[in-house]
Amino acid sequence: MDVYEESLMLHEKWAGKVETKSKCSVQNAKDLSLAYTPGVAQPCREIAANPEDVYKYTSKANTIAVVSDGSAVLGLGNIGAKAAIPVMEGKAVLFKEFGGVNAVPICLDTQDTEEIIETVMRIAPVFGGINLEDISAPRCFEIEKRLKEVLDIPVFHDDQHGTAIVVLAAIINALKVTGKQKEDCHIVVNGAGSAGIAISKLLLLYGFKHLIICDSRGIVSKNSPNLNWAKQEMLAVTNLENKEGTLADALVGADIFVGVSAPNVVTAEMVKTMNPDAIIFALSNPVPEIMPDIAKAAGARVVGTGRSDFPNQINNVIAFPGIFKGALEGRASQITEDMKLAAAYALAALVPDEKLNEDYILPAAFEPGIADAVAQAVKEHIV
Amino acid sequence: MDVYEESLMLHEKWAGKVETKSKCSVQNAKDLSLAYTPGVAQPCREIAANPEDVYKYTSKANTIAVVSDGSAVLGLGNIGAKAAIPVMEGKAVLFKEFGGVNAVPICLDTQDTEEIIETVMRIAPVFGGINLEDISAPRCFEIEKRLKEVLDIPVFHDDQHGTAIVVLAAIINALKVTGKQKEDCHIVVNGAGSAGIAISKLLLLYGFKHLIICDSRGIVSKNSPNLNWAKQEMLAVTNLENKEGTLADALVGADIFVGVSAPNVVTAEMVKTMNPDAIIFALSNPVPEIMPDIAKAAGARVVGTGRSDFPNQINNVIAFPGIFKGALEGRASQITEDMKLAAAYALAALVPDEKLNEDYILPAAFEPGIADAVAQAVKEHIV
Repeated sequence: MDVYEESLMLHEKWAGKVETKSKCSVQNAKDLSLAYTPGVAQPCREIAANPEDVYKYTSKANTIAVVSDGSAVLGLGNIGAKAAIPVMEGKAVLFKEFGGVNAVPICLDTQDTEEIIETVMRIAPVFGGINLEDISAPRCFEIEKRLKEVLDIPVFHDDQHGTAIVVLAAIINALKVTGKQKEDCHIVVNGAGSAGIAISKLLLLYGFKHLIICDSRGIVSKNSPNLNWAKQEMLAVTNLENKEGTLADALVGADIFVGVSAPNVVTAEMVKTMNPDAIIFALSNPVPEIMPDIAKAAGARVVGTGRSDFPNQINNVIAFPGIFKGALEGRASQITEDMKLAAAYALAALVPDEKLNEDYILPAAFEPGIADAVAQAVKEHIV
Repeated sequence: MDVYEESLMLHEKWAGKVETKSKCSVQNAKDLSLAYTPGVAQPCREIAANPEDVYKYTSKANTIAVVSDGSAVLGLGNIGAKAAIPVMEGKAVLFKEFGGVNAVPICLDTQDTEEIIETVMRIAPVFGGINLEDISAPRCFEIEKRLKEVLDIPVFHDDQHGTAIVVLAAIINALKVTGKQKEDCHIVVNGAGSAGIAISKLLLLYGFKHLIICDSRGIVSKNSPNLNWAKQEMLAVTNLENKEGTLADALVGADIFVGVSAPNVVTAEMVKTMNPDAIIFALSNPVPEIMPDIAKAAGARVVGTGRSDFPNQINNVIAFPGIFKGALEGRASQITEDMKLAAAYALAALVPDEKLNEDYILPAAFEPGIADAVAQAVKEHIV
């Protein structure tokens, strides 16, 4: 039985991966009068008088919604709300198991940007944070931006920022391994969807100077036809020499490749044109942009993928549970760029110098203390 | 410390009464690959191919939303979404503890009828049912009706139907105690909000012929000014003799009084004008329309209230957990009038004839087997 068959069988057995659990006992009339009427009227009155008390008396303090419209689920594409539920339940499980954060899957029966924004605004009162998930680009950018403007709770699109934070952490440590300096590195990000653009933004914020984004048609440049607004916006800060051409052209003389694109689009020949000690993160999953052994044979020094069966797995699960744990514990009203950088630094710092090597640049998902370290770093950067 | 102080203290200690719990273990990379990527792709694919499989592989099968806009919370009135959360969490606890049904509190940041309908429609994919709660009349009627039309999952406004079902069960047994016949009984329902109108409808459906509704201004008649559409609609089936006057006028010669109105609006003198062996359900809470001892002294035979410290508590908790348990287990697409009647019969039948007496007409909340009996009856009436 392969992983798909086994997972299907287990999903039927589990009959859903998330359930609700009561934190109070209801065994007799006294219990009932305290957890429900008439006693419950008192916390209601307190919150009506002082809305901030909602964090003191309700689950809002430690519960987020995992919201998707099912438009860009895993590599499966636009499979809709119902088919997205197993992923959102899985994400909710990871929030709880890794970060102790209660997460409620919410799959929306609309893919209209305005309707998604409206709906999340309206259900926000019971949640302490919103994790957006598997919403296609460029709508995801608009949705996140607008929700951050109107809501007073953290809104975080994990496909963007979770991935970006883990990639940055990996690159920080890969630079240590290779001795490269960020100011001198040339980076190629292949994929201009939600992850590619968020990764590019965070790497630039960290201090990289030379970054080119490619999409499925090659280098994104001022002369690329039909760019969506999100790609156009990135032209102000990427590809400053206005290079044109293919992904292969982009990789000539590059130090770092980050792929969030498609299987097997990078060849050994392309890697050979990169600078010595090249750093390659081939995150297309399950089949990466280039297999690690081929990349290594072609001269790459540090190679990471999205897979757990190769070294250097780039896995969001080391970031998002701790990020929300920290944001909720610190009652952050949003997750800022500073908090994202702090999370990346904290992740990189979890690999001590004496253990750091080209096959161990990030903590593995099940190493203890990851979420706590990330949460602590995030909390310290709440403004 | 009174019940309010104790409840407040406990709410702070609990820090929310509902949490999420994982039904699958995530201890290692293998677990992760089954509960999340890559394995989770398989149930997603199956549901995309066959949407009904969402009931097989996700929590939709056993999870409902408890939805409120905070417009009519307990006796506290329009306290808004955040202040309503403790009640909705309490309700979620009762669904789980009494019926084994997972329930997610959703408090909406809108009180606009159309926006509420839209929002519930959009979040419906992850839920197997919708329990509407504490939404003010007459908006609650429109919201429930419209949602029932557009959704393929049960939608149930508990303030209306839960109350109506328990009142009907109580009356069925009160008739046995008093020997009254439903065809001959004159009923007065005081209160023309969500509960009063739903109670009236269900009692008429059960077979009562003579029913008068009163609101805060007295008998609702064809000559009453400024009736909302819901009260007007009831005129076609109630007060067929078109009586006018006060609540006191309505009670003259009545057999049954059901109050869902305000404290102390019924006097001993009024009860004395009712027929012998009068049945009185004074459900205003915590202070009933008339205290049981006063009603009894004035000649009433069976008296019930909403309180647990008097005999014959009329408590929705004996209805709603079993109703949703049955509806979900039987995969009902809605909760029909037949199912409501069946639930009331099942509740009445839980009091065996040899135990039935004027002070014991309904099972108490913590008697075992109530939700199962109700669920079974509901399941048998799914069409």
